[in-house]
Amino acid sequence: MPATVDKAFFDELASIARCGTLPFFRQLLVIDNKGGHAFDPVTQADIKTERNLRKYIAKKFPDHGIYGEEEGTEGSEKDFIWVIDPIDGTRTFISGIPIWGTLIGLLYKERAVAGMMAQPFTRELFFTTVEGSFFQRGDDVPRQLKVRKTFSLAEATLFSTAPSLFDAKTNQGFQRLEATVRFTRFGTDCYAFAMLAAGFIDLVIETGLKPYDVVALIPIIEKAGGVITQWNGRPAEEGGNIIAAATLQLYESALQKLHGRETDD
Amino acid sequence: MPATVDKAFFDELASIARCGTLPFFRQLLVIDNKGGHAFDPVTQADIKTERNLRKYIAKKFPDHGIYGEEEGTEGSEKDFIWVIDPIDGTRTFISGIPIWGTLIGLLYKERAVAGMMAQPFTRELFFTTVEGSFFQRGDDVPRQLKVRKTFSLAEATLFSTAPSLFDAKTNQGFQRLEATVRFTRFGTDCYAFAMLAAGFIDLVIETGLKPYDVVALIPIIEKAGGVITQWNGRPAEEGGNIIAAATLQLYESALQKLHGRETDD
Repeated sequence: MPATVDKAFFDELASIARCGTLPFFRQLLVIDNKGGHAFDPVTQADIKTERNLRKYIAKKFPDHGIYGEEEGTEGSEKDFIWVIDPIDGTRTFISGIPIWGTLIGLLYKERAVAGMMAQPFTRELFFTTVEGSFFQRGDDVPRQLKVRKTFSLAEATLFSTAPSLFDAKTNQGFQRLEATVRFTRFGTDCYAFAMLAAGFIDLVIETGLKPYDVVALIPIIEKAGGVITQWNGRPAEEGGNIIAAATLQLYESALQKLHGRETDD
Repeated sequence: MPATVDKAFFDELASIARCGTLPFFRQLLVIDNKGGHAFDPVTQADIKTERNLRKYIAKKFPDHGIYGEEEGTEGSEKDFIWVIDPIDGTRTFISGIPIWGTLIGLLYKERAVAGMMAQPFTRELFFTTVEGSFFQRGDDVPRQLKVRKTFSLAEATLFSTAPSLFDAKTNQGFQRLEATVRFTRFGTDCYAFAMLAAGFIDLVIETGLKPYDVVALIPIIEKAGGVITQWNGRPAEEGGNIIAAATLQLYESALQKLHGRETDD
């Protein structure tokens, strides 16, 4: 990994994310006279932020590819590819709730090797270095992130974005899992993955994610000691149905519930 | 209402809430050797914060009653009664997610006449004065809150804390409503009511609330132009199944869905 993918670089990206998103956060949608949406703040923020992030990354790493939610892929044949979601959690963004985030991850030969999640309103930055996963708020001293050692489903807290995102089959698995955990909570998008890395929650279950919804979060979770894959065990880098867990034991128990396999846990 | 129930007073209460809660936010639960919970940060924060708020209010308004989640009621025969929930949103608190809040409301002869919601981590304060509902972040200039003018269910965004909180009957009503709105989102507790007053969301539906979950929020919503009652039309001050809406028209349309009555909307 390039040595210049470091905290200073992520600080710059977080600053670009902040300037691109915050001016549009909690701004009202303006409806024009014909009933259409004359000004859609989240679309404006999405486009502006991704464009500025791409420009900065391309200048710093001209040999890398870039894949963003809004403007697609450039350089898909490259070994290093940056993966950007300018605003993950569009619905919380347009609802004024500050748990959306800007996600920026780095793939090396299809494997996520570095990443950051910024929450500009709360001035929180979750990021990786070669030493591990870190959290910084504003100008505070960064703090290393570690998952908590939760091994049993009965002790685990479970997060997901919305029950409506499950189809009939994935919902069955989710409900089997939900019946065994300490409690379930919805509505979190990327923020739940960050809290898992920070040791405050234990399981995140999602379905139908795009690569840009998750690539940035993979190294943050793995370098904090957690596990993240698809439900079928394939790499989370591909997106799809995602499971993240604080420990390997919890991951295996949760997968058994999702797939309806018997377990002695 | 006493003229001293003003912004300066709410600022003091918010400061007490901040000192009582933040030191315990994102602190890990310490499990003792016998498997019990030696240190439960949310319980510590709840008890400490309510005690300090009660002390301050009792000193300032010795003739008022106080009703708090943790320590019950003193002076229930008084005309003015303060209603306190030191931490509304316990599950987001213990999960590290900064959308819980400290709720403090004032009843006069069983009617909510003033209130505040503080989110200490984000330094947000929602409060009422005789002039209306206001929002202040940190030391920024306060901004008056106004609901947005959403009249049709198809344009409305709907929030609730958790699908698991509905019983079979209330769930039927909620699902009828959910089928008609722009989108539904879970996981918000008091924060959704504040965002409704601020004009970023349109409907909040909850069941089984206690008075201390809602009294503080009633004046914040009403003075911003919104409507809040129980599903059966009775005062929200009693707690129970609560509906809050940005406009009266939306409120009436939503109630018809909750109760399964036909409508031309």
